[in-house]
Amino acid sequence: MSQPGAPREPAVVHRAEIIAVGSEMLTADRTDTNSLFITARLNELGIEVAAKAVVADHLGTLASVVRGAMTRADLVVLTGGLGPTDDDLTRRAVAEVLGRSLVEQPAIVQAIRERFERRGLQMPEINRRQAEVIEGAEVLANGFGTAPGQFIDADGRVVVLLPGPPREMRPMLESVCASRLSARVGGARLFRGTVRLVGRTESHAEERLKPLYASWGGADPSVGATILAARGQIELQLSVRTADPGRGAAAIATAVADVEREFGLDVVSVDGRTLEQVVGDLLRSRGLRLAVAESCTGGLVTSRLTDVPGSSDYVERAVVAYSNRAKEDLLGVPAELIAGQGAVSEAVALAMAQGVRRLAAVEWGLAVTGIAGPSGGSDTKPVGTVCFAVAGPANQELVKTVHFAGARVQVKAFSATTAIDLVRRALLQ
Amino acid sequence: MSQPGAPREPAVVHRAEIIAVGSEMLTADRTDTNSLFITARLNELGIEVAAKAVVADHLGTLASVVRGAMTRADLVVLTGGLGPTDDDLTRRAVAEVLGRSLVEQPAIVQAIRERFERRGLQMPEINRRQAEVIEGAEVLANGFGTAPGQFIDADGRVVVLLPGPPREMRPMLESVCASRLSARVGGARLFRGTVRLVGRTESHAEERLKPLYASWGGADPSVGATILAARGQIELQLSVRTADPGRGAAAIATAVADVEREFGLDVVSVDGRTLEQVVGDLLRSRGLRLAVAESCTGGLVTSRLTDVPGSSDYVERAVVAYSNRAKEDLLGVPAELIAGQGAVSEAVALAMAQGVRRLAAVEWGLAVTGIAGPSGGSDTKPVGTVCFAVAGPANQELVKTVHFAGARVQVKAFSATTAIDLVRRALLQ
Repeated sequence: MSQPGAPREPAVVHRAEIIAVGSEMLTADRTDTNSLFITARLNELGIEVAAKAVVADHLGTLASVVRGAMTRADLVVLTGGLGPTDDDLTRRAVAEVLGRSLVEQPAIVQAIRERFERRGLQMPEINRRQAEVIEGAEVLANGFGTAPGQFIDADGRVVVLLPGPPREMRPMLESVCASRLSARVGGARLFRGTVRLVGRTESHAEERLKPLYASWGGADPSVGATILAARGQIELQLSVRTADPGRGAAAIATAVADVEREFGLDVVSVDGRTLEQVVGDLLRSRGLRLAVAESCTGGLVTSRLTDVPGSSDYVERAVVAYSNRAKEDLLGVPAELIAGQGAVSEAVALAMAQGVRRLAAVEWGLAVTGIAGPSGGSDTKPVGTVCFAVAGPANQELVKTVHFAGARVQVKAFSATTAIDLVRRALLQ
Repeated sequence: MSQPGAPREPAVVHRAEIIAVGSEMLTADRTDTNSLFITARLNELGIEVAAKAVVADHLGTLASVVRGAMTRADLVVLTGGLGPTDDDLTRRAVAEVLGRSLVEQPAIVQAIRERFERRGLQMPEINRRQAEVIEGAEVLANGFGTAPGQFIDADGRVVVLLPGPPREMRPMLESVCASRLSARVGGARLFRGTVRLVGRTESHAEERLKPLYASWGGADPSVGATILAARGQIELQLSVRTADPGRGAAAIATAVADVEREFGLDVVSVDGRTLEQVVGDLLRSRGLRLAVAESCTGGLVTSRLTDVPGSSDYVERAVVAYSNRAKEDLLGVPAELIAGQGAVSEAVALAMAQGVRRLAAVEWGLAVTGIAGPSGGSDTKPVGTVCFAVAGPANQELVKTVHFAGARVQVKAFSATTAIDLVRRALLQ
């Protein structure tokens, strides 16, 4: 595939793939974590990771995966498979793909031998294999183990071989990034921003974002965006690659402002804080306390609120009023209101919010009542119908009814997000 | 690459590759966990996973990775990228690699439209894309979301497209494994057993299980075991591959009996029921009701209990007494007991359990009080100290103190498991 030694411009590197080698990482309970560390270091240099793989110790499979990665990426980082056993195939696979030979380097054999001797051991003969270097590769010293790494320029692409054990891999990668790789990225760095949204489905958010995507894509520097949705919360990740820190930060700030203009109060945070943190910060900064009355969410709203360290500053108590009896005698919801409107109604939700506020003697009360399913629904109030209410000082109140799709646990999760968000909206009114 | 519709022997499947699609899984802090679940299920069928990949939302890269996998594996499982947005490229990439067209299926459009309408929403036009099916593919129904899966026979290989969200992907995969895939692995069938344990760390359980593993491995047919631990619960999955149903069932039954003999009351269930279901079934079958008083768990105990459909039969109410004031005036815990013993003490836990039992006028009360952290610890009661109590009829009671390691959210999760398990132990006494 290449003519080693021929003079050639150093490759410029933008797009990487990572390959972790080892059958032990293909079981049902192990994951590859090296790629996370490698991704962090490459991203800091402005190098994007476009794909990553975990491959068994099988020569044909590994060579095929390496060959594929080299057709797509201009940097391929391999980790693992540099040990001394028959299972350690990374050197052979890469040599085969590049059409280069493997040459044993006497200096490396000597270094490995001395490493064993310092521990009073004789080097097993199979360890000679770790001294095999791909023709034309630069050797990367390993301060923490026997297997050296290798750095290869090949056809305008870079291939890096790193050991698998993290304590050997990490310092070697740090050193490669600081020297050889930082020289190949043309000075560009990556700048990131995160916007969190609540109150829309992913597809509705995406439709509103489409024109923004187009304008960001055409800007200079262009802004990339990824959207993630979970439990009724949407996270928009923004990124810019540029050599100019001022322009990078400005491009992110412009994109964030675009989203804020488009989504208004649906924007929960632009600094990475979760909904629960934002609501907590609003309450704490104003010296307000909250009490919660939950029915169908069964305690999940309060559990989420109290996932935040320090939440005891503003969460005073909660009542899970699962039975009508509990709604009546603990929260003072009139029995005739439940009989007349139904336990799942905005009127009952509001009475619950007012009741828990009064019971706890705090500034704000929040309540949720609904039908999580799978049974309990009716024609007028199907499974997934959930009513929310917030009650505050000076008769401030806010009520809302939402119909959620999904199984019981999803209805609970979406309802908890909506409930916590209603407090945010009430405080920002 | 293929002639859809041409008669062909169903492919026999031995070797799989898994491709998880989504740029969000290529950051430095996210991992793909779907592949672990998929690996477990495929391994149980006797299918080996030879490689797996995570690929960005980029058509060319994805198509290239799929093409590579299809040259190596006889089963390619893709997960993710079936959403409605421009970023969701799995359908297009696979169609391109197979040289087949994508056809919108009106019945699927209609099903998606109805799903939106049940929530009082109009289907955004972009969701039509989720109804596009690769020519010749079998459609896999999605009971938990809008995107159907697809199952494709192509050139003696099988390609399966699954959604990304685990709650949608898992049941779809289970169903595919039970039907279409189990028919492709030869005559042998898989027999499974699940034993759930509570009250031990994974490593302690593993030590006690080691001799059993050895005896199961040597048996004929041999029994394989996988151990999974989460939130203080251990799940031991047993599997036997054999063509003889009688011997398969007998081998599983023997292994389950071995575990029961070794672990006694720590065995929660041998029929797949969760701890929450087991406690719920015990309460319901005896006509008993439970009320809960939570402090550091912040509602999580009750939320877990009420994840079980029908839990309103036995969960009467709960109080999250986050402040001392709430413990005193709602649960009747004497202020001098809190002052003397500390809010985190077995005495206060017991007073809370008795208090909530009395307040709700039910048979059983459960209470948790502890220090979830990161602050609030002391030398005698470090962060992670949690006290539990159960109070029942005829002065039955059970108290317990545990020191948990880990961050706030982990302490909450482990505490909730321990609390619910204490009810089980009290009921079985």
